[in-house]
Amino acid sequence: MRKVTIGIIGAGRIGRLHANNIINFSDVRLKTISDLSNEHVTDWAKGIGIEQVVTNNEEIINDEEIDAIFVCSPSDTHANIILAAARKGKHIFCEKPISFSIKETKEVLDVVESAGVQLQVGFNRRFDRNFLRIRESIKKGVIGTPQIIKITTRDPKPPPLEYVKQSGGLFYDMSIHDFDMARFLINSEVVQVYSIGTNLIEPYIEEEGDVDTAIISIKFANGAIGVIDNSRKAVYGSDQRVEVFGEKGCLTCENERLTTVEFINNKGAYQDKLKHFFERYKDAFIAEARSFIDSVQTGDPVVCNGNDGLQAGLIASAAQQSHLEGCLIKINQFKE
Amino acid sequence: MRKVTIGIIGAGRIGRLHANNIINFSDVRLKTISDLSNEHVTDWAKGIGIEQVVTNNEEIINDEEIDAIFVCSPSDTHANIILAAARKGKHIFCEKPISFSIKETKEVLDVVESAGVQLQVGFNRRFDRNFLRIRESIKKGVIGTPQIIKITTRDPKPPPLEYVKQSGGLFYDMSIHDFDMARFLINSEVVQVYSIGTNLIEPYIEEEGDVDTAIISIKFANGAIGVIDNSRKAVYGSDQRVEVFGEKGCLTCENERLTTVEFINNKGAYQDKLKHFFERYKDAFIAEARSFIDSVQTGDPVVCNGNDGLQAGLIASAAQQSHLEGCLIKINQFKE
Amino acid sequence: MRKVTIGIIGAGRIGRLHANNIINFSDVRLKTISDLSNEHVTDWAKGIGIEQVVTNNEEIINDEEIDAIFVCSPSDTHANIILAAARKGKHIFCEKPISFSIKETKEVLDVVESAGVQLQVGFNRRFDRNFLRIRESIKKGVIGTPQIIKITTRDPKPPPLEYVKQSGGLFYDMSIHDFDMARFLINSEVVQVYSIGTNLIEPYIEEEGDVDTAIISIKFANGAIGVIDNSRKAVYGSDQRVEVFGEKGCLTCENERLTTVEFINNKGAYQDKLKHFFERYKDAFIAEARSFIDSVQTGDPVVCNGNDGLQAGLIASAAQQSHLEGCLIKINQFKE
Amino acid sequence: MRKVTIGIIGAGRIGRLHANNIINFSDVRLKTISDLSNEHVTDWAKGIGIEQVVTNNEEIINDEEIDAIFVCSPSDTHANIILAAARKGKHIFCEKPISFSIKETKEVLDVVESAGVQLQVGFNRRFDRNFLRIRESIKKGVIGTPQIIKITTRDPKPPPLEYVKQSGGLFYDMSIHDFDMARFLINSEVVQVYSIGTNLIEPYIEEEGDVDTAIISIKFANGAIGVIDNSRKAVYGSDQRVEVFGEKGCLTCENERLTTVEFINNKGAYQDKLKHFFERYKDAFIAEARSFIDSVQTGDPVVCNGNDGLQAGLIASAAQQSHLEGCLIKINQFKE
Repeated sequence: MRKVTIGIIGAGRIGRLHANNIINFSDVRLKTISDLSNEHVTDWAKGIGIEQVVTNNEEIINDEEIDAIFVCSPSDTHANIILAAARKGKHIFCEKPISFSIKETKEVLDVVESAGVQLQVGFNRRFDRNFLRIRESIKKGVIGTPQIIKITTRDPKPPPLEYVKQSGGLFYDMSIHDFDMARFLINSEVVQVYSIGTNLIEPYIEEEGDVDTAIISIKFANGAIGVIDNSRKAVYGSDQRVEVFGEKGCLTCENERLTTVEFINNKGAYQDKLKHFFERYKDAFIAEARSFIDSVQTGDPVVCNGNDGLQAGLIASAAQQSHLEGCLIKINQFKE
Repeated sequence: MRKVTIGIIGAGRIGRLHANNIINFSDVRLKTISDLSNEHVTDWAKGIGIEQVVTNNEEIINDEEIDAIFVCSPSDTHANIILAAARKGKHIFCEKPISFSIKETKEVLDVVESAGVQLQVGFNRRFDRNFLRIRESIKKGVIGTPQIIKITTRDPKPPPLEYVKQSGGLFYDMSIHDFDMARFLINSEVVQVYSIGTNLIEPYIEEEGDVDTAIISIKFANGAIGVIDNSRKAVYGSDQRVEVFGEKGCLTCENERLTTVEFINNKGAYQDKLKHFFERYKDAFIAEARSFIDSVQTGDPVVCNGNDGLQAGLIASAAQQSHLEGCLIKINQFKE
Repeated sequence: MRKVTIGIIGAGRIGRLHANNIINFSDVRLKTISDLSNEHVTDWAKGIGIEQVVTNNEEIINDEEIDAIFVCSPSDTHANIILAAARKGKHIFCEKPISFSIKETKEVLDVVESAGVQLQVGFNRRFDRNFLRIRESIKKGVIGTPQIIKITTRDPKPPPLEYVKQSGGLFYDMSIHDFDMARFLINSEVVQVYSIGTNLIEPYIEEEGDVDTAIISIKFANGAIGVIDNSRKAVYGSDQRVEVFGEKGCLTCENERLTTVEFINNKGAYQDKLKHFFERYKDAFIAEARSFIDSVQTGDPVVCNGNDGLQAGLIASAAQQSHLEGCLIKINQFKE
Repeated sequence: MRKVTIGIIGAGRIGRLHANNIINFSDVRLKTISDLSNEHVTDWAKGIGIEQVVTNNEEIINDEEIDAIFVCSPSDTHANIILAAARKGKHIFCEKPISFSIKETKEVLDVVESAGVQLQVGFNRRFDRNFLRIRESIKKGVIGTPQIIKITTRDPKPPPLEYVKQSGGLFYDMSIHDFDMARFLINSEVVQVYSIGTNLIEPYIEEEGDVDTAIISIKFANGAIGVIDNSRKAVYGSDQRVEVFGEKGCLTCENERLTTVEFINNKGAYQDKLKHFFERYKDAFIAEARSFIDSVQTGDPVVCNGNDGLQAGLIASAAQQSHLEGCLIKINQFKE
C-alpha cells in the first residue's frame, strides 16, 4: 500500500501528540510540521524523525507531495485552514471545532464536499475502548431501546485565562465532546437543549462571560432523554464517564485508574488515582489517527465527519443560548 | 422509660412493614392497627402480637391510651388523618406526601404546630447507611463546598393503573424522595426547577396524563446545581444512587448487591443482582421508626419534619408544572 | 406447629447472640438460660423475655419441658453437656468444637446417635449469603470440577491470654471453620494436610505454645487442592474470603463493607471499612438457628451434623501435628 | 548519549516482542536478529527497521559493533549463549531461566562477573505497574512488617506437548516468576518450600512427568510466610494477582480488564474479560527493556540480576523436589 504523506499544522500539545503517534505508522511519511516559532520544535521534530519544520502553513498546504493535513492550530484558525487545504485537494483531520459559527461551519462543509476530500473531526473519545464497548453493546441490543443517557466530563483544572478567551466557552470547548458522544451512543439527533451554567470555581472565568460548571438536559429525536454535567475543576483528575439506560438494562463505564492496587487498613480501603487524560486516551488517539489514515488509503467514510462536527457545534450554540436566556432551546428553531 | 403506645392506620404493605419493625422495640406497645377489611389482617396481626385490629380509624385517633399514630393509609387521606390526630394531641408519623396540595399542606402544618405534637414524614432514605455516610462526609467537609449533586431513582417495574391514578404523578410520588434527598445532602433550599418528563414505558401511564421517565435539573440557594433522573422501570431492580461533587472531591454510592460473589469465565465477569427495595432499606425503615419513637420519648426534633414534607412537595409541584409548560420554574414565584 | 421449648447453656457473647435471635421466632419458647454468675444476665434476660435464669446447667438438662438445648459454654465443657443432654433426649445445637479429642468426639457422636436426637454444630458460615451462593454455583456446575480452593480467615485482634489458654490453639479454634468451609464447598473429604504455623504477632501466644499466623495446604479425596491462610490480627477487621477455581471458571467473594460509599480526591479513592464479624454474619446466625429449629420441628437432617464436627476436628488435629513435626500428615493414617 | 547497538538472538514470540519495543527507543540501534529459518522473519524485520537477519548466533556474538544482546532463544540454549556473549564483553538481557541446573547457573554467573558485563534476567513482572505499586507501598511502610504473601498465576491454556518437553516443568517454567515476585516484594530470601503438584488438566502433561496445578508454601528468612497457586488452564484468561498482608494492613491487586464497562440486567451485572497476557504486560515489557538499556548506558545495576535468576531457580528446583518427595525442602540444605 502506498505511503500517505502527512503535514501537521500546529506543534502545540495536540499537534505533537499526533506526530508522536503517526510517526510509528509504517504506511505514513510525516513530512512537515508547521509552528510559528520553530525553536524548540526543531529538536523534538528531528529527534522523532519529522523531515522538516516550517513557520508558514502555506508550505504545507501547497506542498504537492502532501496527501493529508492534521489541523492542530488554535480553534479560530480551523475554518480558513480547512478551506485552503480542501481547495488544494488535501484530506483533512481537524481538531474540534470546525468553527465557532454554524454558518461558517456549513460553508466549510460545502467546500469540503465539492472538493471530494476526507474530513475527520477530532472527537477522540469515539475511539476510547470503554465508550466503544458501550456503543457496540447498544448496537447488539443488550439494553433494548435506550431511554436515558448520562455523561460526566470534568477536567482536572481550569484552563488559563488566555485559553478561556479563545475557547468559545465551556459549551463549545468542553461540552461539545459530550454532545458528540451523546449522538454517537444514542444514534439519534438532539432536538432540544436546556442548560444551567454557573460559576463556582474561578472568578476570571466569569469575568470573561464564561461558566465553569454546567448541567445540560437534552432530548433526542427518537424520544430518549439525557443529561450532561461538566466542571472545569475536579481535583481528583479527568472524570469521563457514561451511562446508558434502556428497556433491558443499563451500561456504565467507570474511569480508569493508574493501577488496580487496593490498600486496606484500620480506616478503610484505598485505591489509586485516575489515569491522566492523555494516559486514559493514549490508545484512543492512536486509533483515531489510524482510522483517518485508513480512510485516506481506502476512501471509506471517516468515523466522525464534518456533519458530526456541525451537529455538535449546533448543540453547543443552543446550550450557550439556553444558558443565557434561561429557557429551553429547540434545535430546529434555533437561530444564532 | 415509659412505653410509647402506638396505633397504625392502614395495614397495607407499608403499614405492615412498620408494624413488624416496631413490635420488636422493647419500649413500644403496639396496641391497634386499622384496616378497612380486617379479614387476613387479623391473623397476621395476632401472630406478631398486635393487640387489636379495627376497621375504623377513629377508634385509633380517639383512643386515649395511644400516644402516637403511624399514618400508612392512601396518600389522599393523609391530610385529614393528620388534622384529626393532631387535634387529639397524638404524635404523628406520616408516609409522604402530607397532601398533594401545597395550600392544604400548609394548613395541616399550622394545626400540627398549634397542637404541639411531633410530625415526622416518611422519607426513609434519610436513614439509609450509604446516604447517611455521604451526608456525614459532606458535613465533615471532605468535599468542601458541594457544587453538583446527581441522584438516580429507578423502580423495578411500573405501578399498576390503580396506583397511578391516585399517586399524584411521578414527580409527587417518586421524585419527591429525591427532592428530599437533594435538600438533605446539600443542606440548602431548591430555588429553581426544570424538568423533562416523557413516556417511554407503559401507554396506560400516558393515558392517565402521567410520565414514566424524567430528568429534572435543579438549582439551590447556595449556588449548587443538580440533576435527578427517574424511571418507572429498571429491569435490573431498584436503582438508588447518589453522587455529590465538590471543590475537594466527589462522593458516590453504588447500589447494594445481594452478595459479593463474582464469577469469571471465558466470557467475562458476573456479579450478583441488586438488593430489592425492602431488603436495601430494611435497616433504614427500622432506624426511621426508632428515631421517631425516640423523638416522641425525648421531645427532641424529628429528623424529617413537616417543613421537609412541604418543601419536597413544593419542588414536586414545580417540577410537574415545568414539565407541562416546558419552562423553568422559580420556586419563590411558584403558584399552584 | 407446636412451639419448640429451648434452654441455652452459657450466657456469654455467643449465648446471648443466639438468645436475641431465637426470642423473635414465633414458634420458639425460650424458657431458660444458665449462667454461673447470673447478676447482669438476669436484667438482660428479663428485658428480652427469657422466662428464667439459672446457675446450674442441670436445671436445663433435666427440665422435661425443654425440647432442645443450645450449648454455648466454654469449649472444654461441650462434650459432657452433649452427653448429658442426649441421654435426656434433648436435641442439641453445639458451638464448635464438640471436643478437642477425636476419640471423645467419636464417643459423643455414638451416644447422640443412640439417643436419636438432632445434633447441629455451630459452623455459622455455612449460612452466610456469600459462601452459600458460591456453594450453589458450584453445585449448578458453573465452574465445572473444582480444582483449587483458597480460604482466608483473619481476625481483627488476637484473643486475650485466658482465651488462648483454653482455645485448643489456632488450628482448633480458628482454622476449624475454614476446614469445614473447605469440605462444605468442595464436597469431598480432606485426605492430607501440610501446615506452617508461626508467631509474628503477640509473644504471649507463642509462650502458650500456640501460633498466630498460619498457611495450611490441603488435598481432597476428589483430587482438588487448597490453601488456607490465617492470622490472629488483621488491623482492617474481620477478613473472611473464599475463592474456588475450576475447569470452567472461578468464583470469589469479597468481604462486605459498611457502606458502598466511595470518596475520591486528589490522592486517590477511599472506600469504607469492613463490616464487623457480628454484623457480617448477623443474618447467618439467624439462619443457622432457624435451620436448627426447623430440623427439630420436622426431623429433617441438620445442615452441619456431628460428623461435620468430627471431620473438621480431625483436620485441625492433623494441621497441629503437621506444624509440630514439619511434615505432611495423611488423614487416614493420622493418630492423635 | 551514545546509541546502544543491539542484537537479538531468537525471533520467536518473545524476541519479536522485544524487537518491536526497542526499535522505538531513540538511543538504540537494533542491528541484527538471528533466526534459524529466516523466511518470514526477514519481511517482518525489514518492515520495522532491523538492519539484518542472520541464521547464525555467532554473527551477533562476534559482531564488534554490538554492545548488548537479548537472549530470546529456547531455554536450554541460554547458558551457552550467555557464556559466549559475556566472554566477548557483551551486556546481556536473558529471558528466564539462566539454566535448568543450579550448578551451571553458578558457573555462568562467575563468567559474567569476571567479564564485568551487565546481565539482566527477564522477570518482566517486576516492571508491572500494579506489582511495582505494591512494592513501593511496602517500602514506604504502609503495611508495616509483611507477614503473609499470596501470589496467583494461572495461564489461559496449557502449552503444547513440545513446549512441555523442554519447559523444565511447571515449577521452573511458570512458578519461577512467582518465586521472583515473592523475593522482590518481601525483600528477603526464601528458606523453605513445600509444594503440592497435581494433574487435573491434560493427560499429556502427566505423561511427560510434569504437573499442571500446584500450591507451594514458602517461608522467608525474615519470618514471613507465603503461598503460590498455579494452574496451566484458567479459561477466563491470564490470572496474575498478588496480596501482601502485614501488621498495618493489606495490599492486593486485581487483574486488569479490557474495559471498565459494566452491564446490568435482570440477571445480574457483567464486566469485561481480563486483558490478555501481552496486553496486560505491554508497558512492563517496554519498561523492562528500557531499564536494561539505561543500565547499559549508565553502568547502574540492573533491576533483576543474575543472582535473582539463581535464587528463583533454586526455589524452583526445591519446589520440584518437594513435590516428588512429598516433604518440606530447606533451601540451605538443598542439593540437586
